[in-house]
Amino acid sequence: MDISKVGLFGKFGDSSVAPVLVKVREVLEKNGLKVLLGSTTSAEIDGERIDDQNQPLNAVIDIAMVVGGDGTMLNAARLLSSHDVPAVGVNLGRLGFLTDISLSELEQCLESLINGDYSIEKRTLLQTSVIKDNEIAFQGIAVNDAVISKGNTGRLIEFETHIDGRFVSHTRSDGLIVATPTGSTAYSLSAGGPIIYPTLSVISISPICPHTLSNRPIIIHENSLVEIDSLKISETHANLALDGLIVCELKGGEIIQLRRAENKLSMIRIDSHDHFDVLRSKLGWTG
Amino acid sequence: MDISKVGLFGKFGDSSVAPVLVKVREVLEKNGLKVLLGSTTSAEIDGERIDDQNQPLNAVIDIAMVVGGDGTMLNAARLLSSHDVPAVGVNLGRLGFLTDISLSELEQCLESLINGDYSIEKRTLLQTSVIKDNEIAFQGIAVNDAVISKGNTGRLIEFETHIDGRFVSHTRSDGLIVATPTGSTAYSLSAGGPIIYPTLSVISISPICPHTLSNRPIIIHENSLVEIDSLKISETHANLALDGLIVCELKGGEIIQLRRAENKLSMIRIDSHDHFDVLRSKLGWTG
Amino acid sequence: MDISKVGLFGKFGDSSVAPVLVKVREVLEKNGLKVLLGSTTSAEIDGERIDDQNQPLNAVIDIAMVVGGDGTMLNAARLLSSHDVPAVGVNLGRLGFLTDISLSELEQCLESLINGDYSIEKRTLLQTSVIKDNEIAFQGIAVNDAVISKGNTGRLIEFETHIDGRFVSHTRSDGLIVATPTGSTAYSLSAGGPIIYPTLSVISISPICPHTLSNRPIIIHENSLVEIDSLKISETHANLALDGLIVCELKGGEIIQLRRAENKLSMIRIDSHDHFDVLRSKLGWTG
Amino acid sequence: MDISKVGLFGKFGDSSVAPVLVKVREVLEKNGLKVLLGSTTSAEIDGERIDDQNQPLNAVIDIAMVVGGDGTMLNAARLLSSHDVPAVGVNLGRLGFLTDISLSELEQCLESLINGDYSIEKRTLLQTSVIKDNEIAFQGIAVNDAVISKGNTGRLIEFETHIDGRFVSHTRSDGLIVATPTGSTAYSLSAGGPIIYPTLSVISISPICPHTLSNRPIIIHENSLVEIDSLKISETHANLALDGLIVCELKGGEIIQLRRAENKLSMIRIDSHDHFDVLRSKLGWTG
Repeated sequence: MDISKVGLFGKFGDSSVAPVLVKVREVLEKNGLKVLLGSTTSAEIDGERIDDQNQPLNAVIDIAMVVGGDGTMLNAARLLSSHDVPAVGVNLGRLGFLTDISLSELEQCLESLINGDYSIEKRTLLQTSVIKDNEIAFQGIAVNDAVISKGNTGRLIEFETHIDGRFVSHTRSDGLIVATPTGSTAYSLSAGGPIIYPTLSVISISPICPHTLSNRPIIIHENSLVEIDSLKISETHANLALDGLIVCELKGGEIIQLRRAENKLSMIRIDSHDHFDVLRSKLGWTG
Repeated sequence: MDISKVGLFGKFGDSSVAPVLVKVREVLEKNGLKVLLGSTTSAEIDGERIDDQNQPLNAVIDIAMVVGGDGTMLNAARLLSSHDVPAVGVNLGRLGFLTDISLSELEQCLESLINGDYSIEKRTLLQTSVIKDNEIAFQGIAVNDAVISKGNTGRLIEFETHIDGRFVSHTRSDGLIVATPTGSTAYSLSAGGPIIYPTLSVISISPICPHTLSNRPIIIHENSLVEIDSLKISETHANLALDGLIVCELKGGEIIQLRRAENKLSMIRIDSHDHFDVLRSKLGWTG
Repeated sequence: MDISKVGLFGKFGDSSVAPVLVKVREVLEKNGLKVLLGSTTSAEIDGERIDDQNQPLNAVIDIAMVVGGDGTMLNAARLLSSHDVPAVGVNLGRLGFLTDISLSELEQCLESLINGDYSIEKRTLLQTSVIKDNEIAFQGIAVNDAVISKGNTGRLIEFETHIDGRFVSHTRSDGLIVATPTGSTAYSLSAGGPIIYPTLSVISISPICPHTLSNRPIIIHENSLVEIDSLKISETHANLALDGLIVCELKGGEIIQLRRAENKLSMIRIDSHDHFDVLRSKLGWTG
Repeated sequence: MDISKVGLFGKFGDSSVAPVLVKVREVLEKNGLKVLLGSTTSAEIDGERIDDQNQPLNAVIDIAMVVGGDGTMLNAARLLSSHDVPAVGVNLGRLGFLTDISLSELEQCLESLINGDYSIEKRTLLQTSVIKDNEIAFQGIAVNDAVISKGNTGRLIEFETHIDGRFVSHTRSDGLIVATPTGSTAYSLSAGGPIIYPTLSVISISPICPHTLSNRPIIIHENSLVEIDSLKISETHANLALDGLIVCELKGGEIIQLRRAENKLSMIRIDSHDHFDVLRSKLGWTG
């Protein structure tokens, strides 16, 4: 892949990142790259905008540089994956799983990019559909996880899970996390799920505080269809959240279908950057 | 203690228990005991009512027989503890931690009661106060647990915990469970808390899905004062629930104070009934 | 696959299974199948022996029927996988993950087998090599797991893990479980590992009681090479066990290499038998 | 308590600590305190020795200053508790739960000691007895924990636990940790046990990797008698370790009795030093 045009995406609605974005652009341009501004960024700094090009995203930019935290990448990922534009993440001071390049490493990493010293990691995304009365009531894509969890209630919620049409379990818990490998180090980890190498073709299903203690996380193939029946939620209250944002209130009677999304997210991994280094740093593995 | 007058408390608002209550009363009366109906029960069957006596509860009945599940006992416990009336729990088919006598054992257990073959276990209850703008915004008693948990949000909530005025931790999690020993086998267990022998003078504090994996359950003395500052909850949404019922919405800026209640709940333990038997049965310890 | 010759493998050294094996053979022969006895079985009952045929195993039998518990299957699996002979497991009264057919279902399952109502599941096995002084000190195959664990010591053991040549972690713990998906419901589950669908192409690595609480199970691709350096074990004492049998004492300075074995184990899944049914039954998921 | 004579106990058999001990003695003497050397320390530096006084320990010294890590305190604790000599722990660079004073704080903490700005925390110790053929085969004291664990075997061990004569469970696991509150932050924490405030009058019992997932840690009163029957250990191999040192091999047929020791360990808590500060630091609670 020849990299000449870079889309710059910054943390949304945070004007304090403007000076950083200006600096990042300078570094990119100094290295002979053309820079176009993503929609979130163009609100903060002036310059040529991607949205003004009236062309498909992958015709306008070769890669996207996302500056912020992991949340910024989660926001940009849906757009980028739908046009198969590879993303590289730059953090604003605090190392992220998806934004693992620090500002101080920026020039060195650009050099690696220009020299081709990188690989593209394909990350599985989750397609979530809520079926109600035989109609699709909601559809959306998650990078990390789709979470069914109790809302305004002090009680457990109950649901039934099927995988590829086969009954798995009737569960009483605070909820259920269906996570991609990318999301395995996020909420899923707090609920007892394992760390999954980000490029694996699997999905994890982890109950949140299950009443039955042996209801443990399950790892299945990403080609499986997970269906969750919100059977008795009507008596309590539950929500569906994608990547930490509530997208749908569940009133009972819905079927939530989860399958891998058609498109994957292409993440650029600079050769000198290792996932296990990030894990050790973020999780405090000091030995 | 001489037992001659028994208060009968049944599952609230469930008319299907009426035949069982009538049968229980028959057995009690056949054994020479006077039976008075608690408020929940008197809605279901006819008979002499406790509420009509115009006397303090502990002048009207010697013990309370609570027929239902653990939830029925949780409901009756506040009233009974405030008058120090001992309670004995009879389950309606499904063994409970607090209702460990089955209908088939009823006569045998009554004999034990009349013969004095029992002991009284004092169970610690939790007094919860919510302080807002230097005023008490809410007060209540919990038998099992007081739970601060996120409500209608897909995000973590943040709070600070102090014990006896000393800073313990700043936590990001789905919430926090402060449990009595009685509550240690309820929600707290699902969140990773230990099983605590029910008569111990301790309180457990367990985070729910904490972001920092080393934020583990803490056991402290029941005389300690736990204070939780809902500092940044305003940006998200959280609730306070006692024994599984939401009692208070938290908007940020509240201090939730938890201390043992002045009164304890007196639970009658029939000599032939052992807590470890119930644990094995309820938790499926088959070896 | 045309099934006409069945190898019968029974629980090793347990003469009490002889009557069951005789009965199983009767059922097989009544259904027109030729039965040959595996080495473990031929010690218990008389009949035509596989070992007397002087031919490769897969020329002598089409499938192997393994009668016993999961341990019996673990023993037979190495032989069967090396000749790619599919296995079907029959339990002696207690449902197993690998022996999920009960004696009462035997006839019905045979009918399914003969009618072709089954599928073949390929199960990944682990190839384990111990390298010491640049020589291979031990090599072996595991169906469930390869476990490095402390032996006669009350102290932690320390080791370093690399995956595909990249440093993962320096760990202090009671040991480390490297498990196949098949082994995910065995020891690994007790140590906090997830349930992995048995046909996935992944391997899990789970520390046993790690000193650093964030040292959580990791799921990697089965094509990865795991290398564990027993660096400081010399000061303590450790063992390597495959499928629960100690195969090697570790004295420090060894490199334990784990990769998927060249051959997979072919397990026969009768169409009416579902892995999730077994999970619910074995783990007591009652909902 | 008037403090004028301090016993100095250093890390055993580590001559590198000699200069530190000399420096600590200087600081103590400069503050008007008389210093006598404990047996471990007197091997490293010259000076007046406790052992030469021919008097009971508590007649010779008012308090013991233990310089090293938590392991050094574990070693000194048995002697100190048996004579009720309060201990204060000074670490050699790495904060310990029992050695929470750093060298840089030493002078300031001495001032607190001399001014009486401290409290004495009574720490429960465990008395362990192994009964075999109706005779006491071993007896010993543990500060942190008594651990029954599998030794040279790749299999689970089985045992039965009774508390105060009542049957608790038949367990199959890697072993069992019986811990004091002081030990709750050591091995017990790695096995899933809770953090217990160090002065509580309780004992925790935590299975190590139990086969039955609902076999969770149990907290009982310190006055309870725990009895563990090593019933089937003969078929495998197990050890009993106190504070991480194997003291006894178990061959099956033993009863291991655990109860609180008659004497408690008196730990000096400088007023400015808080247990929760140590927890946050040691466990990496960053919020």
